Amino acid sequence: MTDDESDTAPLEGSDAGLVHSRDHFFDLPFSFELGGTIPAFTLRYETYGQLNAERSNAVLVCHALTGNHHVAGRYTADETRPGWWDAFVGPGRPLDTTRFFVIGVSCLGGCQGSTGPSSANPATGHPYGLTFPQLTMRDMVHAQRQLMNALGISRLHAVIGGSMGGMQGLLWAIDYPDAVQNVVALACAARQGVQAIAFNEVGRNVIVNDPAWLGGAYYGKGPGPEAGLAIARMLGHVSYLSCAGMERKFGRARCAQSILADRMAQAGSASPFKPEFEVEAYLRHQGLSFVKRFDANSYLYITKATDRFDLTEGARSLEDVLIPVRARVSVIGFSSDWLYPPAQNREIATALLLAGKEARYIEVETDAGHDAFLLPCKTLFQAIRQAL
Amino acid sequence: MTDDESDTAPLEGSDAGLVHSRDHFFDLPFSFELGGTIPAFTLRYETYGQLNAERSNAVLVCHALTGNHHVAGRYTADETRPGWWDAFVGPGRPLDTTRFFVIGVSCLGGCQGSTGPSSANPATGHPYGLTFPQLTMRDMVHAQRQLMNALGISRLHAVIGGSMGGMQGLLWAIDYPDAVQNVVALACAARQGVQAIAFNEVGRNVIVNDPAWLGGAYYGKGPGPEAGLAIARMLGHVSYLSCAGMERKFGRARCAQSILADRMAQAGSASPFKPEFEVEAYLRHQGLSFVKRFDANSYLYITKATDRFDLTEGARSLEDVLIPVRARVSVIGFSSDWLYPPAQNREIATALLLAGKEARYIEVETDAGHDAFLLPCKTLFQAIRQAL
Repeated sequence: MTDDESDTAPLEGSDAGLVHSRDHFFDLPFSFELGGTIPAFTLRYETYGQLNAERSNAVLVCHALTGNHHVAGRYTADETRPGWWDAFVGPGRPLDTTRFFVIGVSCLGGCQGSTGPSSANPATGHPYGLTFPQLTMRDMVHAQRQLMNALGISRLHAVIGGSMGGMQGLLWAIDYPDAVQNVVALACAARQGVQAIAFNEVGRNVIVNDPAWLGGAYYGKGPGPEAGLAIARMLGHVSYLSCAGMERKFGRARCAQSILADRMAQAGSASPFKPEFEVEAYLRHQGLSFVKRFDANSYLYITKATDRFDLTEGARSLEDVLIPVRARVSVIGFSSDWLYPPAQNREIATALLLAGKEARYIEVETDAGHDAFLLPCKTLFQAIRQAL
Repeated sequence: MTDDESDTAPLEGSDAGLVHSRDHFFDLPFSFELGGTIPAFTLRYETYGQLNAERSNAVLVCHALTGNHHVAGRYTADETRPGWWDAFVGPGRPLDTTRFFVIGVSCLGGCQGSTGPSSANPATGHPYGLTFPQLTMRDMVHAQRQLMNALGISRLHAVIGGSMGGMQGLLWAIDYPDAVQNVVALACAARQGVQAIAFNEVGRNVIVNDPAWLGGAYYGKGPGPEAGLAIARMLGHVSYLSCAGMERKFGRARCAQSILADRMAQAGSASPFKPEFEVEAYLRHQGLSFVKRFDANSYLYITKATDRFDLTEGARSLEDVLIPVRARVSVIGFSSDWLYPPAQNREIATALLLAGKEARYIEVETDAGHDAFLLPCKTLFQAIRQAL
């Protein structure tokens, strides 16, 4: 994901200002869909705007693979990078904090404040590592639901999210039909496609084959599989961009020699296979930045959860699966997204309509690929406003 | 590349029968385009059919990234896997050995008989490793040209090849316009696209970060970076298939448990991140098979050579670059190839026509992706027959 490369950022409203995160500790066991339990868990979350007296204006934002609870605003006035969807959230913005109580939550299984493989198992005092139970998208949604209950929100005005976050929005509508009024699912599919599985599997292999992974038990024993995780991220990043977007942005431009020297020092690259093209230096930079903020085991668990996501598994049809839905569902696709391509986005809306539900599909024309859902643009802003 | 998954293999003609390879030793220095020389070099090649008295019926087959000189036929009667383009070469086949003298050559820089990074440097007696000079597509073509001279062939009836082999065909027509009468360039581009560079760069990073790579000096010190090379190949393989082809072939099918156990043992996979989907087991199998026959440093050098390939580098336009061409050029694209997509194939033929050359573009409808050039099908057979 990139949230720093917008072409058309319409300035509207104002930002969410100074924000802070909170941790909710659940002192009760969590049972996972595929088996296994943990004795207790924490979810880190952040809110913007005010919950109204009727408790009816909450909007849950579900993040993508490597996102987190920090959706908008800044922790300190001089922080240079705000939350990952900052342009979307604030007074007068599409997720208008004068109207909505917006909530971001880091997913169960992650590594950014909510309980995951890098968290200490209370029974042992040591990080779970691979003893953390196998994870599904439904587990993450189930945990979110428990947080909403804890916050006294029995019915969400909306669940909105892109990529994995969109999958979660669909599960909310199916599993808790009375608890959600609107769903906005961006850049997602009713099931993970085989090419997306293949890319994730390559990334997982890179991590698992990094000797510093140590069978997942690398905590407290050095930096962990940083090289492997960085490379997995490089590959992920290619799948988030579009071919046309990469050609426009990088083409075959060579690295400036000064940048090259810096990047080489940073990457510890062995000549003669140093970054030669700009796109190579860019991807290495993305990979190296990523390892500072992400845990390799969480990457394994969460990619597996997305690969396993298939609404139609064991079902007769997608329409059948969608029968419980009561929410109004807006599906938003992006023309150059080849990870969850428009045909897969559209399929969701079509099945909802065939099942007699209130649904619509909006396609945003862009060369920004899958990552387009992170980038402010007028069409997207308008689509979200209408959906909410 | 896969040469084992044809849907529509029309049986025509007969195979090339028993064949054997030859080594030609050049006892003279080879100077590389980007600098550096080696004191001598060997090219391994194979021929099918008879060179006619006029020496005018030779057809040079240029292989792709990881291919070799063994284009067709079998080394022993009981060999189960013939050459990589076996269905295309033999009496009555598109490369008809009753008419043509067909030549396959392993490329300079490779690891299958021709001199490359894994070959001994005569000056030291030790493998070149990273002291092997940087490699370009032009170097490979220049070496092929020297072999043709050594075989007494001053003019080729045709140069034919797919992917990297197609790039070489174009270079033959540009650099040696009097030495080639026809070029058949399949599934290739006038320059490596940025997405293809990005995938190669990810693959190279995986190899270079495998601790067994040892800075390229792994020869005689264990098995080398097998895990890294296998993963690089997995990724390459995804880019050789199409999304639709993968959905048709694998979809979200799960591994049979018995297969799973075998694959896990083979891959030494750590639970719980074992292959779960068929596509994962298939890719791992492809990766593991590949390391048995390929050298990691050759993979680095040859992918770099393809990434650097850009006919228009420093030129005003592609038409300008093509002015020297005298050959009749047939460009063949494959509808679902997203590594060298049809638009990139077509660009070559268009530029040739604009430059006043004899050229045509044929597109084969298929869901087999980039690898389609390896698979026998009627449209492709007919296109090659016409081109020759």
